[in-house]
Amino acid sequence: MKKYSSEKEFLKNYDASEFDRPSVTSDVLIFSVSNAPGENWRRQNQKYFSVLLVKRDDYPSIGKWNLPGGFVGIKETSLDAAHRILINETGVKDNIYMEQLYAFDAVNRDVRTRVISIAYMALIDKNKLHYVKEHTAKWFIIKFKENRFELISEDGELLNDSDLAFDHAEIIKTGVLRLRGKIEWTDIVFSMMPAKFTLGELQQIYEAILDKKLLPAAFRRTIANKVKATRQMQKGFGHRPSVLFEYKRKVQSID
Amino acid sequence: MKKYSSEKEFLKNYDASEFDRPSVTSDVLIFSVSNAPGENWRRQNQKYFSVLLVKRDDYPSIGKWNLPGGFVGIKETSLDAAHRILINETGVKDNIYMEQLYAFDAVNRDVRTRVISIAYMALIDKNKLHYVKEHTAKWFIIKFKENRFELISEDGELLNDSDLAFDHAEIIKTGVLRLRGKIEWTDIVFSMMPAKFTLGELQQIYEAILDKKLLPAAFRRTIANKVKATRQMQKGFGHRPSVLFEYKRKVQSID
Repeated sequence: MKKYSSEKEFLKNYDASEFDRPSVTSDVLIFSVSNAPGENWRRQNQKYFSVLLVKRDDYPSIGKWNLPGGFVGIKETSLDAAHRILINETGVKDNIYMEQLYAFDAVNRDVRTRVISIAYMALIDKNKLHYVKEHTAKWFIIKFKENRFELISEDGELLNDSDLAFDHAEIIKTGVLRLRGKIEWTDIVFSMMPAKFTLGELQQIYEAILDKKLLPAAFRRTIANKVKATRQMQKGFGHRPSVLFEYKRKVQSID
Repeated sequence: MKKYSSEKEFLKNYDASEFDRPSVTSDVLIFSVSNAPGENWRRQNQKYFSVLLVKRDDYPSIGKWNLPGGFVGIKETSLDAAHRILINETGVKDNIYMEQLYAFDAVNRDVRTRVISIAYMALIDKNKLHYVKEHTAKWFIIKFKENRFELISEDGELLNDSDLAFDHAEIIKTGVLRLRGKIEWTDIVFSMMPAKFTLGELQQIYEAILDKKLLPAAFRRTIANKVKATRQMQKGFGHRPSVLFEYKRKVQSID
């Protein structure tokens, strides 16, 4: 086994290209909260759970929608790459909730070569975005239908999960399942809510992520310790005004 | 951006080596339950939370202990590689609990070249092992001490976390934290317990993973729905015999 007499000699002779190496990318799920899509939905006082997609402008799968992503540089971590991609797409760099989601590495997931994607999940409040690149990037609302989902852009474009490039539908689904598992025992959902929201709006986001209807009384018990009422009301949607709430940031305990 | 007139032409000209590519490995955390280490501990009726380590027989870090691992083949997934490594070390291939833990990719984590490790966590009942390679592999009990841990092999060898090769101490810690987060809402801990165990032994494993003492009454409430008593007793440790319990497998519901 041991061919060299020292580590130094071993390293001098080490040839990384002796074995085939995969390419490694970072793809970023950027989740947020959108308003109602399309003209005929406008009047509804609804918030929707949504994801940012970009339209591919090069081969492979040119013209298809996919998650923002790119190759991980040889001198950067996949997390660095994810931040670089997020900044490039949105201009946002501070106070972003970002976590590593999963490494996707089915052997034939990319027609170019063997590509392993280390996917990240970012949760952002859209109101803090600096920009979204027009024409190439759009927010799509995610609507589950049994084990699949549909996507509807804010301007009304409709996609099925099978319309996405690569295995990005699977990445989106994995991200939603991760969120679903964490929504009750963490406060990360508030990273994508606007600063002020009604409890009805917050419930809509919970329901979209959990893919089920919640009883308002039970929902309010769940989030009671996480939010506090402001003195402001939401008006202008043609029904009774609702109290606006905000996230009650936890005081850091010392233990 | 678009240089070619068709995807076919694009793919014909695609050169994956145009960008530097990292090497990708799969490292496998194999957690299980060990008996007391060393001669002077033998009489104690205790079970310990442990991890399988192998001694490196080649550069780099020759002679150091590390997790079993290896390069991911260009035609296999990292999960396939993890299973291959597990089978190679232990002979076990069926009914293994295995999950992807995290992709570790600090730029300088390996002195050879840029190496990204996609780490997996396997939980196994040692009694089902076919073999462990003698001389090169050993079970080490994990003992947390504040934010660090010590390792003690079943035959009494003592290591600090800083004695491990590469960033494998960080991988072990990440695995314990993952288990800690899951131990209350999943049943995965039973994948590493022997078929029959006392409640005292089960509590010792919970305490080792959670790194805190539990009140027996509270612990028993936590696991009440997960275990059932057998008609057998554990004897021979010089104190009162204890009832042996077994894991109560959940009946799959249809919804």
